[in-house]
Amino acid sequence: NSYRIASVPGDGIGTEVVSATIQVVEKLAKTLGTFKIDFEHIPWGTEYYKQTGRYVSEDYLDTLRKYDAVLFGAVGSPDVPDHISLWGLLLAIRGPLQLYANVRPVRTFPGTKCPLNTATDGIDWMLVRENSEGEYAGQGGRSHVGQQWEVATEVAVFTRVGVERIMRFAFETARSRPRKLLTVVTKSNSMRNGMVLWDEVAATVANDFPDVKWDKMLVDAMTVRMVAKPGSIDTIVGTNLHMDILSDLAAALAGSIGVAPSSNLDPTRKNPSLFEPVHGSAFDITGKGVANPVATFWSAAEMLIWIGEKDAASKLMGCVERVCAAGILTPDLGGTSDTQGVVDAVCLEVEKL
Amino acid sequence: NSYRIASVPGDGIGTEVVSATIQVVEKLAKTLGTFKIDFEHIPWGTEYYKQTGRYVSEDYLDTLRKYDAVLFGAVGSPDVPDHISLWGLLLAIRGPLQLYANVRPVRTFPGTKCPLNTATDGIDWMLVRENSEGEYAGQGGRSHVGQQWEVATEVAVFTRVGVERIMRFAFETARSRPRKLLTVVTKSNSMRNGMVLWDEVAATVANDFPDVKWDKMLVDAMTVRMVAKPGSIDTIVGTNLHMDILSDLAAALAGSIGVAPSSNLDPTRKNPSLFEPVHGSAFDITGKGVANPVATFWSAAEMLIWIGEKDAASKLMGCVERVCAAGILTPDLGGTSDTQGVVDAVCLEVEKL
Ligand SMILES: CC(C)[C@H](C(=O)O)[C@@H](O)C(=O)O
Ligand SMILES: CC(C)[C@H](C(=O)O)[C@@H](O)C(=O)O
Repeated sequence: NSYRIASVPGDGIGTEVVSATIQVVEKLAKTLGTFKIDFEHIPWGTEYYKQTGRYVSEDYLDTLRKYDAVLFGAVGSPDVPDHISLWGLLLAIRGPLQLYANVRPVRTFPGTKCPLNTATDGIDWMLVRENSEGEYAGQGGRSHVGQQWEVATEVAVFTRVGVERIMRFAFETARSRPRKLLTVVTKSNSMRNGMVLWDEVAATVANDFPDVKWDKMLVDAMTVRMVAKPGSIDTIVGTNLHMDILSDLAAALAGSIGVAPSSNLDPTRKNPSLFEPVHGSAFDITGKGVANPVATFWSAAEMLIWIGEKDAASKLMGCVERVCAAGILTPDLGGTSDTQGVVDAVCLEVEKL
Repeated sequence: NSYRIASVPGDGIGTEVVSATIQVVEKLAKTLGTFKIDFEHIPWGTEYYKQTGRYVSEDYLDTLRKYDAVLFGAVGSPDVPDHISLWGLLLAIRGPLQLYANVRPVRTFPGTKCPLNTATDGIDWMLVRENSEGEYAGQGGRSHVGQQWEVATEVAVFTRVGVERIMRFAFETARSRPRKLLTVVTKSNSMRNGMVLWDEVAATVANDFPDVKWDKMLVDAMTVRMVAKPGSIDTIVGTNLHMDILSDLAAALAGSIGVAPSSNLDPTRKNPSLFEPVHGSAFDITGKGVANPVATFWSAAEMLIWIGEKDAASKLMGCVERVCAAGILTPDLGGTSDTQGVVDAVCLEVEKL
């Protein structure tokens, strides 16, 4: 039970939350004594880009393949256009490593406040996002740049392989949860090709999961349901863009955008999966030592589950939840603690395990 | 001051809410005596399709061009795939008539309940949606249908003309409102062509509106802001798909999805504009006489403003708001009235004008 993890803190508060998380996970491994874990620092990000002209090394995919998993911080810097930095680093990993399932649990979390008065029983959703194609396929271009007749396109590409594998993954995810409900989100009334393929594949794959109750919903109507009937939702699956939007919305509705984790999985396990907080590089608070590390703690717990340390993961989450419930929170959640204060409190809880 | 309006009730409850609205608007015209209005019934919709094989007549664009405006109900039927019915009727009008500005006011409305406890000062937003291109350009296709290597594409098409005209319209809309704030929504971190064009055009057009305060926001982050800081928002502009999603979300957050109106405008006034409730055909309640007509009343008020009867429009909205505030509401808003009950109550208010 010995793991090698690539640590890619990236930009902004990425560095702060990843180093906070390494402290906590190393403490956990040492205290429990049931597994060993090594984090190796990889310096990719905007600084690296400024020095080398690239966000990652030339052999970056091979480099990552040497590890059991990747713990990622954030990417993006005020002085580089976002489409350069994101395609240079994060999106250069998700697609090429075929991390096709982006999984985002969203639930009301200790220390956070749910802003919805319709969520009387709290929120407990599992969001599954197609992470390798669709609107993020990277196709499209611009012609006649600057002319009145300029045309720019963004081409969403859906393959049957791509849709089938994420659909199957989503049905399996729904099956593993107590309520066994799945909502397939598309926009097949206005988009007649890839979205209709999604509908067709959903209907076919559903035949293999008679124990999962599923329905279809248009992405616009889904936002209404999330607001008005949060209790009717369990697992959701949708395209790269639709779930990008719905997962931010979900975290906001649960009141937990500051603590939201995300797993970028290759379910075939041919490649290492990548775990990252949903928040970004947040340059406005970078260097102040007040970044909220909880989303990265939670992402690390998801990573531990993925590599096979389920018990350690649930112990870690227990510690984190106790600290949050005790009100040891960073300013974004209305607390007065700094990042290291939260780290120390979680380490103290870990010591008690 | 005499107007000819094409009435296209379409499918499902469309028929019920449009006929309710005609009663109210005719009463208003008669009572005020300041303008004349004629509604002419056009039978397009799923029944028409079943009889003729088309959702609209062959010369439908010329037919519509004879009117001062179009009052539209809904389209969509359980026995026809949505992408057939919608492209057959509604989307066959929006694009070809160049109704490029879809305008959706959203505000906390008498009789509705806002589910957000962050919206302490209520919600008052103006949503502007590009309505003629982008993700709804209708391009794309499927190859190798049914094979494992099947590929389906949806091509979003953005033209400089299309982006500039909606941006200018949005800045003008923002300028006409007391707070003069505009948020331009894009997704230019992951979409590098059309979305970057949006960013560039926004920056250029903004130069002509020094009195408007504007900012940019990614569509995913915008959902978070709508939930967490609703008071920071005034006017929003975005693409066809992004604003389709955000406008449903906005109405849900304001608690007013049942009353949400929508204007499909040709700001050049070469073509008649189309006004419709945001809700759809709702076959589950069709024929029961309980459809909520308020969204269509409000849409008709927006139509009156557009054709030049601003005073009549504000009087109509006053009557509708008084009826809603008095609790005369359909079941979707928790009331016990039927459609005709709401119509009668509004007509009574109109008589008092
Ligand atoms: C940073 C950005 C490219 C990314 C995305 O849009 O996928 C982020 O919003 C996310 O949700 O992980
Ligand atoms: C009916 C449908 C095609 C339409 C859309 O997606 O534009 C609707 O959702 C709307 O918002 O007007």
